[in-house]
Amino acid sequence: MGQDDAWHKENRERVFWQEFSVPWRFPVIFTRNVFAPANNALATVFQAAGPVPVLAIADSGVAEANDGLADAVQAYASSHRNALRLLSPLHVLPGGEKCKNGAAQVDRLHRLFHKHKLCRHSVVLAIGGGAFLDMAGYAAATAHRGLRLVRLPTTTLAQNDAGIGVKNGYNSFGRKNWVGTFAPPFAVISDLNFLSTLPNRECRAGLAEAVKVAVIKDAGFFQLLSGQRKKLAALELEQMEEMIIRCAALHLEHIAAGDPFEQGSARPLDFGHWSAHALEEASGGEILHGEAVAMGMALDCLYAAEKGLLREEERDQIIHLLQDLGFRLSHPVLAELDLEGALDRFRQHLGGTLCITLPLGIGCRAEFHQMDLEVLHSSRDRLMAHKG
Amino acid sequence: MGQDDAWHKENRERVFWQEFSVPWRFPVIFTRNVFAPANNALATVFQAAGPVPVLAIADSGVAEANDGLADAVQAYASSHRNALRLLSPLHVLPGGEKCKNGAAQVDRLHRLFHKHKLCRHSVVLAIGGGAFLDMAGYAAATAHRGLRLVRLPTTTLAQNDAGIGVKNGYNSFGRKNWVGTFAPPFAVISDLNFLSTLPNRECRAGLAEAVKVAVIKDAGFFQLLSGQRKKLAALELEQMEEMIIRCAALHLEHIAAGDPFEQGSARPLDFGHWSAHALEEASGGEILHGEAVAMGMALDCLYAAEKGLLREEERDQIIHLLQDLGFRLSHPVLAELDLEGALDRFRQHLGGTLCITLPLGIGCRAEFHQMDLEVLHSSRDRLMAHKG
Repeated sequence: MGQDDAWHKENRERVFWQEFSVPWRFPVIFTRNVFAPANNALATVFQAAGPVPVLAIADSGVAEANDGLADAVQAYASSHRNALRLLSPLHVLPGGEKCKNGAAQVDRLHRLFHKHKLCRHSVVLAIGGGAFLDMAGYAAATAHRGLRLVRLPTTTLAQNDAGIGVKNGYNSFGRKNWVGTFAPPFAVISDLNFLSTLPNRECRAGLAEAVKVAVIKDAGFFQLLSGQRKKLAALELEQMEEMIIRCAALHLEHIAAGDPFEQGSARPLDFGHWSAHALEEASGGEILHGEAVAMGMALDCLYAAEKGLLREEERDQIIHLLQDLGFRLSHPVLAELDLEGALDRFRQHLGGTLCITLPLGIGCRAEFHQMDLEVLHSSRDRLMAHKG
Repeated sequence: MGQDDAWHKENRERVFWQEFSVPWRFPVIFTRNVFAPANNALATVFQAAGPVPVLAIADSGVAEANDGLADAVQAYASSHRNALRLLSPLHVLPGGEKCKNGAAQVDRLHRLFHKHKLCRHSVVLAIGGGAFLDMAGYAAATAHRGLRLVRLPTTTLAQNDAGIGVKNGYNSFGRKNWVGTFAPPFAVISDLNFLSTLPNRECRAGLAEAVKVAVIKDAGFFQLLSGQRKKLAALELEQMEEMIIRCAALHLEHIAAGDPFEQGSARPLDFGHWSAHALEEASGGEILHGEAVAMGMALDCLYAAEKGLLREEERDQIIHLLQDLGFRLSHPVLAELDLEGALDRFRQHLGGTLCITLPLGIGCRAEFHQMDLEVLHSSRDRLMAHKG
């Protein structure tokens, strides 16, 4: 210690504070028929950068539901040679939640990126649902410390929520998004026509995120959703489009105004998600993310009302809207859910501090750092007994 | 197209520009005897956050060269219970360039993080050389989208360069850092005493990065290094310390003032690195990174002089300094190097555009987007013929 005492006494310890901000800016475009040669949305994204090398990859579900997708991509590139240069025909890979279980598809994409010699200024054009974009986004973000990613989300959920944010990842150790990074995309282009090729169940699931953001942030949006519940339940495209754009705008605003890389613990947009993640995991993917979020919100509304935080009329308004939109709010998996374990895993995922967002009314929320387990169990029982 | 023409005509396409900045701030501390209970540097880093759960991991090379390291970490934690809480005894894992070949060690760390239920507010305390910190940093950055990483760099190179930056990664497809992310650490603490336990060759290798940053950014620093060349060549601790702190400060300033996440193509700090990466890869790790950088700089200085960019006296000053510091500037691998291929791989790594930083004088640089291959070959031949 002799030398070190002297060291400290002489006060020769040096501390530098390193400080900087990293700026990001990217367009989020809503269009239709993105690969029609006359549609300039995609080409515009690249124009400033000259003809950009592009590797196009698609979710197999989307490729199957959209005959001729590969040809359409190719024809589009031929019509916009100044903007983009396709490195190969469209690559089709598995989509759906399974594609992000483990690293297999990420590894496969890394091999593909390496084979095509992609660099940090090359573009990966990823066409697919939320899970596919999460997985492909992770692969792109980690190759050469980040390729440019253009996302073309094709599901309701991906267009109004998952596909416009700054997160990516895959599931590991049986846990949603255990591996992942924050990586803003180069651009997002939502083609609303893709919704018409979706299975109804998948198209509907994304409505849950709209109800979520309306309940915690925007009473006017909640009124809009309530007024259009019949057309939304019937998945009519014009109403779906209005819902998606408004929901996406709320998400974008939230990210930009808040804590994009979640350096703190608060996650207000995760209303209903603590149990939703657990429900999805426990169901082995049988319950879609949006469906789980609908159940999770119903559970949290019952809880909030029982704790005197939310008026019963408002609780019922939310629950009835979810039911009218076509969501089942109960599922056998809910009965077996380890609520305490699910809270603890959510706490771990957030950071050390539990942070649960609950509605105090429609358009009004607060964060809570603990949950009353007894009331939570009785809320779960009441939800199970619910006829929906 | 009917509907879509109408769509475009009605100009209903919606574009949102998402824009935000993400701020970072972290301390970079130079101290000695970091685990002496009386040294508050490490504890201070956590104090504001209360007792923080910490998983400590160390490079096996460091653990072997520092008897009792695990006990010292444990004793330190016992003396600073308000600041940190060790989750387990020190974990020792392989270090050196080999630990970042492929994903095996990253996967191993992920399993360890999962076993100890680390969350985004937990801290991984990583003690080791540059390669170990790169690999561990990648594992930390991708678990739960980023655990908090406190780096304790233990080599010259890690303390004056690699360990203070914002990059991490591992080697894949035989390519350095093919997989990686940008992720600022929570804190960096350099204990200069670790240098005295390093093998001489490793201790010396880091001097190359100091010459690099001096040549391209700071003529005064170059004069300092030149004046102290004998003591530096003898690896005397006091001169090494001065060199490390000044070199680190230049790197920190460069990162903060520039483009921390390298969104552009310029990489001025990569002087000498385009061929260095190729030399390291071709030697299968036999040549240390710093040794390869010394050769790479010598090659680029010969080239710059031959192209009339750098005066011959300055070229010789740089080359003689490198030799006097104990670097060999030639190696059989250099003879076989595919220079064109190496430039192309560097271009890919940077982004589409080649960007080579060359010195125009000491403390003065410029960027070049192409290299004259004929001159480069003759520069290589002259370097091979060099007696050093």
